[in-house]
This record gives sequence, structure tokens and C-alpha cells, in this order.
Amino acid sequence: MALNDRASAAIKIAQSGGALAKDYFARIGSIEIVDKGVQDFVTEADQNVELHIRSLIEEAFPDDGIVGEEHAVKTGTTGYRWVIDPIDGTSNFINAMPAWCVVLAVVKDDMTEFGVIHDPMHDETYQAVRKGGATLNGETLKMATDAAFDRGSVSTGYCNRSDKSATLRIIEELIKRDGVFHRNGSGALSLAYVAAGRLIGYIEEHMNAWDCLAGQLIIAEAGGRIETQSADSMIANGGRVIAGNAGIFDDLVAIANASYGT
Amino acid sequence: MALNDRASAAIKIAQSGGALAKDYFARIGSIEIVDKGVQDFVTEADQNVELHIRSLIEEAFPDDGIVGEEHAVKTGTTGYRWVIDPIDGTSNFINAMPAWCVVLAVVKDDMTEFGVIHDPMHDETYQAVRKGGATLNGETLKMATDAAFDRGSVSTGYCNRSDKSATLRIIEELIKRDGVFHRNGSGALSLAYVAAGRLIGYIEEHMNAWDCLAGQLIIAEAGGRIETQSADSMIANGGRVIAGNAGIFDDLVAIANASYGT
Repeated sequence: MALNDRASAAIKIAQSGGALAKDYFARIGSIEIVDKGVQDFVTEADQNVELHIRSLIEEAFPDDGIVGEEHAVKTGTTGYRWVIDPIDGTSNFINAMPAWCVVLAVVKDDMTEFGVIHDPMHDETYQAVRKGGATLNGETLKMATDAAFDRGSVSTGYCNRSDKSATLRIIEELIKRDGVFHRNGSGALSLAYVAAGRLIGYIEEHMNAWDCLAGQLIIAEAGGRIETQSADSMIANGGRVIAGNAGIFDDLVAIANASYGT
Repeated sequence: MALNDRASAAIKIAQSGGALAKDYFARIGSIEIVDKGVQDFVTEADQNVELHIRSLIEEAFPDDGIVGEEHAVKTGTTGYRWVIDPIDGTSNFINAMPAWCVVLAVVKDDMTEFGVIHDPMHDETYQAVRKGGATLNGETLKMATDAAFDRGSVSTGYCNRSDKSATLRIIEELIKRDGVFHRNGSGALSLAYVAAGRLIGYIEEHMNAWDCLAGQLIIAEAGGRIETQSADSMIANGGRVIAGNAGIFDDLVAIANASYGT
């Protein structure tokens, strides 16, 4: 099967995973939470939603590779690799805050070919196919190109892998420009919001592939700008993520370079 | 009529205002947005939701005073004053992000007697009566007392009235303690989340009465800690807001004092 089969399957798979995650969310008070480290948690919801998504992928595309946040890598033979974040925004999820999403990307030949970000709490499905445009619930996403720092919010990720002082410098640079920082605790959902024009940009020093590949493609296909990156390298190592409205993208890169180093 | 009449009326009034606001939100792309200043916007939704809420209050309690974010103060004769934020989180609202709420507080004799925060997007109504406890959708809210910075998120407000470098110092102090900052763009909703144990604390250098009085009461009645403040003074001038889980409250105050001055 070719990409388009995977693209349409991926939407259904993400939505199915989202429905399961939403069931867990409704009874979050009774779910076991495991510490993975400082400010890093995982629940049976993350683990089981990923297993559910993996089973759907394996049923439809048994020879594809799979990379997920919570379980071991599966090596495939087709050249296609599915990259899964079953629940992006786990801290929100375990704290009963409705800002989290299910993320799937399909990678081939070092490129992200397809991405979907599904927010089951608000019935929003963002998706993009490389060179095929981006949509939100089927409506074309077309980002403006005239953002200004003093009229929008820039999302800043922060996690335990970050250089703490660099995060401060990012916020300092934003505030200097009359910008406002936003951190809702779900990087992938924030990237989707950038694609929808709700936020004007996103800067994070280090994201994992499952957090960012889908959102980066959706932003690029919606007419925003992202940094050129190797999908394979992101899967292997993660990397920094800068994405945003074309009107401020160069400034976002300058802010990141000043704060993180180039 | 006594407070309990007002308390039960306030829930219905906030929910009615929330339903109207949600109607506007569904067609946010076609609503006129007016700049009030840098990063400060208002829409016909804010204005008309406040008018709607005012009309319901005036119908039920014609002699009460009213203070709202968007319209002129009404002086009353009963000693009761209603403090209204028709849409807290206007930037989220105008950018189609579902993190905003309707806020009502009732003040008498310099005290907040009643507060309600209604999130119509997620059907959540937080309320408290002074010395009467706090609830979320009718269920008693009872905050834990053992929060730790490395296991939760602290919300930090930021607005154009803030000392910019102080906001940075707050975040720096949080990060030092392995804490995480959160800024979802609705201060009142964040305060409600503190009362529900979803966030562990809230720090903002300056909030207006309509943003904070209800949330402060709900947190106090849920077993959290807030600073003792004059409701009248907050209505006249606004003030700083520090609120949180009892386990970290003293540290939150220390962070604020170090960052803002005492």
C-alpha cells in the first residue's frame, strides 16, 4: 500500500487511540502513575493507548516499522516508519487538564510524509501530507504571514532535558519584543495551534521525534516555516524545534540561536 | 435577599453567560476584535456577555452594585457588589483556544462572600461560599497539602501591567526548585485548577479583582492558602496574587517577595 492508504488509516488510528485515551481521562483519579524522573511521568493510559495504536498499525501495515514513546522500536521492511506519541501532554493528562493529544507521523527516506495530531477532548484532528497541504477537521489550514510579537503568543516548551537558563533567555527575548510566552504543557498541541494560527510560534531546545515531526509537517504544509531537519536524525536523537508564522520565523531562529547557541 | 440566594443565582448567571460566550466562540472568526493596548484585546463577545450578566443580576438584585471589566461601575445600596469578568482569557478566546472562563464574585464588607468560575467549554463550574467550602460541579474540592515543586506545575500570569524582569525571576526561582511554569492564558481558570489540585500554585504580580477574587476564595475554601487581602482594595487597585497548595505556599510567597519585592 502507498502513502495515501497510510494517511487515511493514520487519521482513523489516531482517532481510535484518542477515544481510548479519553476513556482513561474520564477516570484519571483511579489510574496508576509512575515516575520516570523529575517532572516525567507515565501512566497505564500512555502505555495501553500506544499498544492499541501499535496493534492497529500492525494489522493494517504489518511490515512497517514503529517507534513509540512508551515501547520498544519495531524494525520494518517497507521503509515506512510510524512514530507514535500516544498521549502528548502527560502531565496535563494526569492532572485532569484537558490539553493533551494523540500524535502520529509516518516517515520514509528521512522525510516526514504524513502527520496527524488528534485532540479528542475538543474533537479536533489536524493532519498534513507532505506536498499535500494541511487540514483541521477537513478544512484547509492556511497560516497568515504577518504575525507580530506584540499581537500573539509564542509557545515555549520546557522539559527536564532542557538547559534551564536557556529557557529563561528565550522568555526574556520574547518579552523584550512585547511578546507573550505560553506553555500549556503539550508541545504537539501547541504546534497544532501554531498551524491553526492560534499561536504565532514555537521554540523548544529539545523535542523527541514523536512530539514534533507531525506538528512540524502540519505547520510547513499550512504555510508556516520550520527548520529543515532529518527525520531519521530526529528519531535517533531528537533536536531543537523552531516553527512559526513566516512573519516572525527569522526572529524566532535568532532568539533561539541567542539563547541556545547555533 | 441574603447571600445564599445570591450564591445560587450566581451559578445560574455564570452558566447563562458561559452559554452565550460559547456561542460567540463557535463563530470567533467573524467577531470584531479591538486593541485595548499591547497584548490587550476586547471583543463584542466580552462586552455583550458582560451586558447579559449585568441584566440578569439587575433583574434579580436591582439594588446591588456591579463592577465589571468592560463597562462602568454601578453603585448599589445593599452593600453587595458583583464583580464580573465576562471572559477571562480573552487572548485565548479570540485565538480559538478553549482555555477561558466566566468569573463572578460577590463582595460585602470588604470580603469576598461568594465566587464562581465557569468553564463552558468543559462544563465545569467551580464555586465557593465563604466558610461554606468549595465545589466543582457539586463535588467537594479538598486540596492536598503535600505538593512539591518537582512534581507539579506552578502557573505564572503575565500581562502588560507586569514588571517584565520580575516575571523572569519568578520562572528562574521555580526552575531552581525543579519546578515547571505553566501559562495557559487564563488566570482565573488557572486559579480554579489550583483549587482542583491540577496545578500546585499561582503567582502573578498584578491581577484585577474580576480576575482573582473568585479563584482566591475557591482555593481558600478548598483548603489551599492565599494571602489575606482587602476585597475593596483589590476592586480599587488590583494587587498581587499568590495562591497554592499549603505544602509550598510559604515558598511561593518567598519566591514572589524575592522577585517582586515585598
